[in-house]
Order: sequence, then structure tokens, then C-alpha cells
Amino acid sequence: MNATRIRWGLALSLPLWVGLAAASPAWAQDAATTAEAAAEAVEEGVSAEMFTVNNLWIMIAGCMVFIMHLGFASLESGLTQAKNTVNILFKNTMIVSLGILTYALIGFSLMYPGEWGVAGVLGWTGWGIPLPPGGQTSAYDAGYTYHTDFFFQAMFAATAATIVSGAVAERIKLGPFLIFIIPIVAISYPITGSWQWGGGWLSTLGGDDAGFIDFAGSTLVHSVGAWAALAAVIVLGPRLGKYAADGTVNPIPGHNLALATIGVFLLWFGWFGFNGGSVLTADAAAVSLVLTNTALAAAAGAVAAGLLAYFVTRNADLTMALNGILGGLVAITASANIQTPMTAIIIGIIGGVIVVVSIIGLDRLRIDDPVGAISAHGTCGVWGTLAPGIFGASAGVTQLGYQVIGVVSIAAFTLAFAFIVALAVKATLGFRVDEAEEIEGLDLGEHEMSAYPDFPRVYIKSYHTREI
Amino acid sequence: MNATRIRWGLALSLPLWVGLAAASPAWAQDAATTAEAAAEAVEEGVSAEMFTVNNLWIMIAGCMVFIMHLGFASLESGLTQAKNTVNILFKNTMIVSLGILTYALIGFSLMYPGEWGVAGVLGWTGWGIPLPPGGQTSAYDAGYTYHTDFFFQAMFAATAATIVSGAVAERIKLGPFLIFIIPIVAISYPITGSWQWGGGWLSTLGGDDAGFIDFAGSTLVHSVGAWAALAAVIVLGPRLGKYAADGTVNPIPGHNLALATIGVFLLWFGWFGFNGGSVLTADAAAVSLVLTNTALAAAAGAVAAGLLAYFVTRNADLTMALNGILGGLVAITASANIQTPMTAIIIGIIGGVIVVVSIIGLDRLRIDDPVGAISAHGTCGVWGTLAPGIFGASAGVTQLGYQVIGVVSIAAFTLAFAFIVALAVKATLGFRVDEAEEIEGLDLGEHEMSAYPDFPRVYIKSYHTREI
Amino acid sequence: MNATRIRWGLALSLPLWVGLAAASPAWAQDAATTAEAAAEAVEEGVSAEMFTVNNLWIMIAGCMVFIMHLGFASLESGLTQAKNTVNILFKNTMIVSLGILTYALIGFSLMYPGEWGVAGVLGWTGWGIPLPPGGQTSAYDAGYTYHTDFFFQAMFAATAATIVSGAVAERIKLGPFLIFIIPIVAISYPITGSWQWGGGWLSTLGGDDAGFIDFAGSTLVHSVGAWAALAAVIVLGPRLGKYAADGTVNPIPGHNLALATIGVFLLWFGWFGFNGGSVLTADAAAVSLVLTNTALAAAAGAVAAGLLAYFVTRNADLTMALNGILGGLVAITASANIQTPMTAIIIGIIGGVIVVVSIIGLDRLRIDDPVGAISAHGTCGVWGTLAPGIFGASAGVTQLGYQVIGVVSIAAFTLAFAFIVALAVKATLGFRVDEAEEIEGLDLGEHEMSAYPDFPRVYIKSYHTREI
Repeated sequence: MNATRIRWGLALSLPLWVGLAAASPAWAQDAATTAEAAAEAVEEGVSAEMFTVNNLWIMIAGCMVFIMHLGFASLESGLTQAKNTVNILFKNTMIVSLGILTYALIGFSLMYPGEWGVAGVLGWTGWGIPLPPGGQTSAYDAGYTYHTDFFFQAMFAATAATIVSGAVAERIKLGPFLIFIIPIVAISYPITGSWQWGGGWLSTLGGDDAGFIDFAGSTLVHSVGAWAALAAVIVLGPRLGKYAADGTVNPIPGHNLALATIGVFLLWFGWFGFNGGSVLTADAAAVSLVLTNTALAAAAGAVAAGLLAYFVTRNADLTMALNGILGGLVAITASANIQTPMTAIIIGIIGGVIVVVSIIGLDRLRIDDPVGAISAHGTCGVWGTLAPGIFGASAGVTQLGYQVIGVVSIAAFTLAFAFIVALAVKATLGFRVDEAEEIEGLDLGEHEMSAYPDFPRVYIKSYHTREI
Repeated sequence: MNATRIRWGLALSLPLWVGLAAASPAWAQDAATTAEAAAEAVEEGVSAEMFTVNNLWIMIAGCMVFIMHLGFASLESGLTQAKNTVNILFKNTMIVSLGILTYALIGFSLMYPGEWGVAGVLGWTGWGIPLPPGGQTSAYDAGYTYHTDFFFQAMFAATAATIVSGAVAERIKLGPFLIFIIPIVAISYPITGSWQWGGGWLSTLGGDDAGFIDFAGSTLVHSVGAWAALAAVIVLGPRLGKYAADGTVNPIPGHNLALATIGVFLLWFGWFGFNGGSVLTADAAAVSLVLTNTALAAAAGAVAAGLLAYFVTRNADLTMALNGILGGLVAITASANIQTPMTAIIIGIIGGVIVVVSIIGLDRLRIDDPVGAISAHGTCGVWGTLAPGIFGASAGVTQLGYQVIGVVSIAAFTLAFAFIVALAVKATLGFRVDEAEEIEGLDLGEHEMSAYPDFPRVYIKSYHTREI
Repeated sequence: MNATRIRWGLALSLPLWVGLAAASPAWAQDAATTAEAAAEAVEEGVSAEMFTVNNLWIMIAGCMVFIMHLGFASLESGLTQAKNTVNILFKNTMIVSLGILTYALIGFSLMYPGEWGVAGVLGWTGWGIPLPPGGQTSAYDAGYTYHTDFFFQAMFAATAATIVSGAVAERIKLGPFLIFIIPIVAISYPITGSWQWGGGWLSTLGGDDAGFIDFAGSTLVHSVGAWAALAAVIVLGPRLGKYAADGTVNPIPGHNLALATIGVFLLWFGWFGFNGGSVLTADAAAVSLVLTNTALAAAAGAVAAGLLAYFVTRNADLTMALNGILGGLVAITASANIQTPMTAIIIGIIGGVIVVVSIIGLDRLRIDDPVGAISAHGTCGVWGTLAPGIFGASAGVTQLGYQVIGVVSIAAFTLAFAFIVALAVKATLGFRVDEAEEIEGLDLGEHEMSAYPDFPRVYIKSYHTREI
């Protein structure tokens, strides 16, 4: 490392700031304008105290959602091999950072457009996170400040991207992955998000009072991440040695199940903010029901997945129980606010069962998802989105129809978008590391580092020798 | 894994849902009824804003208590051997899940009965978590919603069970453990809990205005876990090689002290919710005193245990310092709301001292507790329960008498209950893995997995060869 | 371990309690007096509800700052060698414990003196944490209770000390380190803190309405920790083998980058409490702007540091990206409440760039800081403190002058204090372990334990053979 290089590095990083600065003169608001929301809320009959406690809960919930990024990083690195740990940690660090920055630059504006370009489908309020022209718009609730809203939504946005990271682990090139994921989080996720949470066409399928239901994002967040992951995994192909020519599925066990368990517990904790904060007020009856349903669905998912895995494999399978927790959580997310504790448990049990079935099924299709992300977030995301058409006060054929339309339309858009980006990246930069690097591990190849340099490791060559 | 097995597995998991569904038709309340508590609170003179902030704090505190389960899982796996890590993680995952589910099914109803069957001793409001007949009952405060109350208490309930897991680690069979622990968390814990927090006989020992003091559960939660652990450990016996025939105590060091430290810090963090949330309002003076006392007692426990261990062993013993934190936390739990910072420090110091003495003492009695759970939660739980009879405004001989009655009665009930269950399980299913499995590790025996498959491990055979 | 030793140990730990008890009779306040703050706030026109929610946020923020101690412990042990892990964990456990206790005993009283001995420079309200004579003083806001204030500030105080721990890792003696750090956290930190947050001379440099700006402590907390670390590192010297005679810098890689990443994410999470809580109310507009700015600066720091490191080294350097997060966080801390999202991003980018440059630069100066603490907290702390003189509504030459005065005066005081203490400790007890212990690892030398006894480790002898 010489001084010339440092100077070059400094020079080359300049465009980043200049681009940001040039793109968003509107960001030059001062802090005072954010106080307008409070004044406005008081005018609308919400007391200053209630406004404060509502905002406080949404902000704390946003901090809890942030911790989910640590949960994902821990789970994904725990469930993969030690030789790829630095790579996974680096990806997750960059995803949350780039996710927050791009959401500030364009995502938030796309997702809560206020004014539509193509009615109900695509809108835009401008670069950066200024207050929209004219101050508070109808596109977001006067019950919280602009920055409360941004903070909470920005933490959400990055979770969709993080889901992809696990599915493509252990064989994707770092740079192309980041180039693939940025348009997903910055463009695709907020556009489909605007269809429902931005007041778009899905939210008014049945007129002003009825439409698609997706309380906290079983589809808008979780299945979006899973569809993007599915596209990427199909373009990438499975890891070397995972599927033998004779049809055998070779397990490639994760290197640290304590780390994976830490990850799932942190995700569960963060989910209380993810679902609870999505009430968008601190209303005690609503939030406490959501937290209770979230806890019960997760617990039911763990037990159901653990039992099913035991009946199938005769082993108490920790990773399946952990995926059952996630399956239950994803499944309850679309309707945690309108289920009873009993229906929450049923939804969680089914989530736990289908995550196991889906993981086994995807392996038969030779779709290689090292952490089970497509099953937990995709399969259970679809199930959770259908659930309010089946259980609870909203259940009914019409509602179920709206739910199917929501699932299919968002799946179609996201899959198409992700396939196009993935194929474009593959054609230009390449998407996959070469065989030697995959066998040696991405930590050395992409990072020239080991996550555990003080400990000798075992390389299980047999996976590769069988296939190669 | 073939398709037949999957179908079988699905079929076999059906009874779980059917049982749940059949047992609790009363769960079919809708969300709207939970709003009644808010309306009721406003009628009683609590403003809607204060009701909201009170509930918010109890719910956030519940989320923090949830994180204690991750703390326990990390601490317990860190303090045991790498060959048993999957087993411990699986147990902790199942305990929190089964704990929440069974508390919903029967525990909550037993603990806050509203109507007594045997006055002050045993009551029951029915299966599931419906609102009790007649809506809000006097058995719980109208200051929070029914689901806020359930959420917070359910997180508490499972902690008692988690305490047991560490003490019996490294030699208990998985299935029998789960069968042992379910009645503890579902029946024994809520019954003794009802004696005090459900308005039972201990809470009115001295008439309406006086009785047993146990603010957040030094006895009701922590020592209950420890007594159940003690019974199980006595029935199980020590790990192979722990105690040599000549009286030597062979240390069996934990495999990851970073993981153990993470666990204790997460427990300390969660304890702010455990104690702070037990105020059951967000009253600033009360909660801030509780948090201050909790922080000071934990810090004092760490320093006292660290110093004492240094004087005894001439080493700066990390595990003793960590146990000192827990000892201080358990000790302040019974009276964090009525001590001054000064008396909180003294209570914490004594907690830190006796946890060290207790760990050493139990080893002399050949009671093998791999993580020191019986000492931290039991010995310090007793000390903490006696403390409000000795320190603070409540101190006095009469109060101390009430405290002794509470400690002894709950210990007697829990020990009797746990011994009966443990002996019954032992007689029918067996309680302990065989020697070969214990030596090889429970991860392979019970789970056919390793927590760290990429890393070679050292098996310290000498523990076993000495004994066998 | 025999009974005599236990008795001796118990006897020797007695002075600790007696000293605490004797020093602070004033602690014998009862809980009721803390309710005075609430009554006073209501008198001043803050509603009881607003008082409650304000306190609640500060208390929750204090809990989040507590988690930063786990973040530091994880980061520091992850970035150092496996043979020194127990030592680092023990130090961090003791620092937070001693930090809280000494802050209760003297720090809080020094930092918020109410009455000055030397006007604006040094004051004192007495031992312990009683309410000051006359109840609530003007030195702290009537908007929160005395114990809320203490709890939040005590968690802050210990972070300054924790910063030092990482910089001196892998070669400092345990006892002397603790003796060095106690006066820093108990005396030096609160004195310089009182200059600004206690209403001292820095806060009124420009008269009643203007002065030094340091919102949440880029200088008062972070750079104070870094200056103390710098003094200690200079007195200690570099680790054996770090700098070869020919000028080569030998990297000594950390043993667990997953642990380090967990640490940084927990620090980021805790920082939301650190900065957000420093608003000292739950005002929604103010807190949400602070959280947004904090998130954006951290994200920008990660991307900037990652890019710069890539341009310089052609590797995707995880540890640099992690340090970029910290650099961005430290930099925004001084003015998170008065920047716009755009200026927060710029401040974060510059923080991410200079943390990389500073780490490389310090290595050229042969100042060996194993975790980059001096760069992240010191260099970026200075940058962050200058920032409100350059960006935002406060920017201007006069303000920049105040900022320089603040940076220089606190650096001078802290460096002088720390050098004197470090040299005194070195002269009397010795500061550094001997060579054999450094090579073998401090875990065996100071603790007779290994953090990972089940796993064989690799000792990279080449570092040492080159130098010795």
C-alpha cells in the first residue's frame, strides 16, 4: 500500500459524494421542517403526547428491525462453510448500508409517491428524502414525522435484499452480487411496495374499502426477497457437489450452529418490531395483539417443523426447528393484526410444516439454497399472504382472490425484474466464481482473509470429487 | 427421506393442531375485545396517553425478556463442551417455544385465576387465552390490555424452564427432558406463581396490606427454575468423570467463553426489561430506580465475585465474574423497586460472593451443575428473597418471616413436583443417555449433527478414563 | 481451593463494601424522593404523560447504550488472537462493572456538579448518587428523574473506558490496566465532561447562547477514550513482531471476524440509543432526525471505507468496512441533531475515508492499535467535532473556532492525565506482560484458561521470530 494508491483511492471515491450531492439539492431542508408533522397531528386531534408515544414506538421498532440485519448475517454465516464467512459478512454489511443509502436516494420516493406517474403503478416524488412539495402528503400518515417514517421504512427495505444473500451464498461473485442487488432494493422493491403501502392499485382492488391485505409484508417484503433469490439461484446454478449425477443430495453442513441460532433468535426479536411497528401507532390493543400473535406463530412453527423433521428423519433437527421459527414468523406477518391467538397458532404450524416440505422439495428440483431462504421467505410468504383469505374476520372467497392477485402480480414483476438483471450481469461481468475459488473458498479469493485464522479447518473434498 | 415418510410426518403432526383447536374454542375472540381494557382504563381515570405509554413499556420489556432466552442459550452452550452444542441449542429453542405455547394453553389461566378453586392456592379460568368471563377481572390490572399482560408473562414463564436446561446439560436425554420440563412450565410454575402474583395466599400473609415480597421473581421465577434443576440433577447424577473416586473435582471447561460472555451481557440487558417491566407501568420514578438498582447490583456482583475468586484461586476467573453478574441480578430481583442504590450495591455484592461459595460448595456435594445455574438462580434467589426482610424500608423480623415462608413453601412444592416428575420419567423412558453417547457427545447421538463440522475438535478423554 | 482460602477471600472483600458504605451515607435516600422530579416537571408545564414518555425513551436508550458494551467486547475479541480472548472478555466485563460503580460513587457528582469549586472547570456535589442538596438542581434538567439521568449517563461513562481496552489489547497486564482505567472513567472523563454537559466553560464560550457543540460526545466520550488509549499505547509499545526492523508492518489478523461483525452491528444498534437518547426528550421530530442521520452516516461510512480500501488494496476488506461504520457513527455524534440527511451522509463518508487513512497512518508511526480504536474514536471524533463548524446551520468560522478549542482543550487534559497515570503505573506495578506470556497468550498467563479449550489452535510464530 503506497501513498499514490491512497491518493488514487481518495480521488476515486469522490464521484460517490458528488453524485449524492448533485442528485439531491432538495435534501437541504433544515431540522425545523420536520416539526411540522407534530403541529399538523395536533391540529388533527391527536394530542402532542400521543403523537410522541406513537412516533417513539415506530422509531424503537425501526431499531429492532435493524437488528434483523445482524440476525440475517449471523444465520447465513452460521449455515454456510467457514471458508466463505468473510464473504457473507461483507455482503451483509454492504447490503444494509447500500440499502439505507439507496432507499434515501430513490427508494422512499418511489414507494410513497404521493403523485402517480402511471396511476397506482408507478410514481415518484424526486431524489433524496426532502419533505414532498407541499409538505406532508396524503401518501403518508400525519401521525408520524417524515423522518420517523423514513427510518422505519429504510430498515424494512434492506431486509428484502438481505434475504437474497443467503440463497446465493458460497458461489456468487461479490461485485456482480452487489450490482445485482442494488436495483432490487432501490427500484423493484419500492415499486411493488407502492402498489399496496403507497396507496397503489393492489390496495384498492375492491374499491376504497377493500383490497389486498398484507399487514407487514409477507409478500411485499419477504416473498419479494425470495423471488429475487430464486431468479438469482436459477441463473447461478447449485454449488459444486451439492447434487450428484445419480440424484443424491449431498448435505453441506453449516460451520457454526451456535451462530445460526443466535441469528434466528435475533430475527425473532427484531420481528416484534417488524410486525409491531407496522401498526404505525402505539395503540395498546393493536400492538399487544400483534406481538402475541407473532410470538405464538413463531413458537408453533418451531414445534411443528421440529416434530415433522423428527418424523421424517428420526433426528431432532436443529436447522429445521430454526427454519420453522422463520416460517411461522413470515406466515403471520401478512395478518398478525387481524388473527386471534388461535388462528395465529394454526398459521404458524402450517408455516412450520411447509418450510420443511419446501426445503426438501427444492432440493429435489436441484434448486440449491444453502440457508433455506426461498422456502422460509417465499413459500411461507405465499402461505401467509393467503391466510387472511382463509382465517379470521377477513376470510372469504373474494378476499382470497385479492390475495392471489397480490401474490401473483408481485411474484411476476419481481421474478421478471430479477431475471433480467441477473442475466444482464451474468452476460457482462459474470455471476459466479470459478471452480478453484469455490473449492478454496470465497474468503481467500475475494477478500484475501480468513474469518478464523487461528484455527485449522477441515475441507470436505468429497463433495467436489464426486461431482468433478 | 422418502415421500411416504413426509406424508406420515404430516399425518402425525395433525393431533397437535386438532388438540389445540379442540381444547380452546374460547380463543375465538376477535381483536376488538382487547380494546376494552383501554376504554376501561380511561374510565378509571388513566388518560389514553398514559395507558398507551404504560402498555408500550410493558410490551418492550417483554421483548427484552425474550432476548434473555438467547442469553441463556448462548451462556449454556458456551459453558459446555462443543460436542453437546447442538443439543443445548435445540433444547433452548424448544423450551421457549413450548413454554410460550403451553403458557397460552394453560399456564396463564392457572397463574392469574381470578376465581379460586382452592382459595389462594389453586385456580383456573379455562383453556387458552380468552378474556376471562365478564371481561377484565380483578386478578389483573386494568392498566394494560389482556394481550400485553399475556405477552410479558409468557416471556417470563419460559425463563424458569430455561434455567433447568443448563444444569442438566451434557447427559440428559432429549425427549425425556422435554417431557420433564413441560409440566414444570405449564403447571408447577404458574401454581406457585399464583400464590403471589395471582393474588394468592402468600400475597396476603399479613392481611390485605402486607405479605410476602417478591417484586420480579427472585423466588417465583429464578429459584423455581433452580429447584426444578436441583431435583433433575440429583436424579440424573453427575457427568462421567466430573468427580473422581478420590474426591478430586475435575473441571470440564466450556468450549467458547466468548459465547458465554455474549450470553451474560444479553441476560443483563434483558433483565432491565425483566425488572423494569415488572413495575407494570412506565412510571418514571419507579422504573428509573429499578433500572439503576439493577445495573448497580449486577456490577457489584461482578466485582465481588471476581475479587473473591481471585483471592481464592489467584486467577482472574472470567466464568466466576460472569456468574457474579447473574448472582447480583437474581438477588436484586425480589426488591429492586424498594431498595436504594446503596442497598442495591450491598445486595449485589453479597450475591456475587455467595454465587462463588455456592458453586464451590455444590461441587463438594458432588452435585454437578455445568453452568452454575443452581447457584446463580437458587442460592442467590433465596438470598435476594430474604433481602427485603433485611434491607430497605420493608426490613423487619415480621417481613423476614414472610420471606422465609415464601422461600420454603415454594421450594417445597417445586422440589416435590419436580422429583415426582423426574422419577416418573426416569422409571418409564429413562432420563440419561448411555455412557458411549455421553462420551461421544449428544450432538451425534441425539441429532446426527455437529455444531462445528468444519473444525477438528479435541476430546479430552482423561475425564472419562479416570472414572471408568 | 481450601476452606481457609475461602474465608480469607471473604474477609478481604469486606473493605470493598465497608468503603462504599462509609463513603456515601447520603445514598440512604428512599425511593419516594425520586418522584419529586415528576411533580416538579408537571409544575413547569410538562404533562405527566409527556414526562413519562420522555423518561421512558431516555431509559430505553440507556439500555441500548448498555448493549454497546457487548458490542465492544465482541469487536475487540474478534479482532484479536484467540489466545487473548478470555483476557479481553474479562477486561470488558470489569470495565462496565467498575465504570457503573465508580460513576455512582464519584463520576456523576463530578460531571454534573451544580455548584462549581473552580467556576466552569471543576465541581463536586458529594459522594454517591443522592439527590443534590435542595433537590433538583439547575445542573440537570427537570424533565427527567434523577435516576433516569444517572442510568443513562452511567452507561455512557463506561463506553469511554471500553474504547481503551481494544487499543492496548494483547500485551497489557490485567491488574495495572484496571488501575489505569479507573481514574480515567471516575475522574478524568467526568471533569472534561462537566466543561460542556455539566454547564462548564466550554458550553458558554460564546456567552450564554453560544459555545462548543458536542451533541452526544464525539469529543466528550469518543475522543476522550481515544486519547487515553493513545497515551497507554505509547507507554506500552507495539506488540511483539508487529513492526519489523525493516519497516514492514506485519498484520496480526483477528481470530473471529463473525464475532467482530456481531460487535459492530451491536454498536450500531446501541448508537441509536446513544445519539437518540441524547436528545433527552422523546420529541418526535428531533429524535427521528437524529436516528435518520445516525443511520445514514454509518451506512455512508461503511461504503466509503469499503470502496477506499478496495481501491488501495484491491481487496474487499471486511475490517475496514466495519471500521467505516464506526467512523461514520463517531463523526455524526457531535451534530446528529443539527445536520440534514445530506450533510449527515457527507460527514459519514469523510468519517469512513479518514478512518482508513488514519489506521494506515498510525501503523506507519508504529503506533500499534489492534482494533483501530484510536482511528475510529479519535481521528473521527475530532473530525465529527469540527463538522458542525463546517456543515449545517451552525457552520461558521466562529463556531469552528469554538470546536477547535473544545477538541484541543479536552485532548490536552486527557492526554496529560492519562500519561501521568500510565507512567505512574508502569513505574510501580509494570504495565506490560513479559515476552513469554505475550507469545503464549494472556489467557494462560493471567487467567489459566483458554476461551476455546475444545479446539486446537495455530500459533503463528513467524511474527515473533522476525522481531526477536
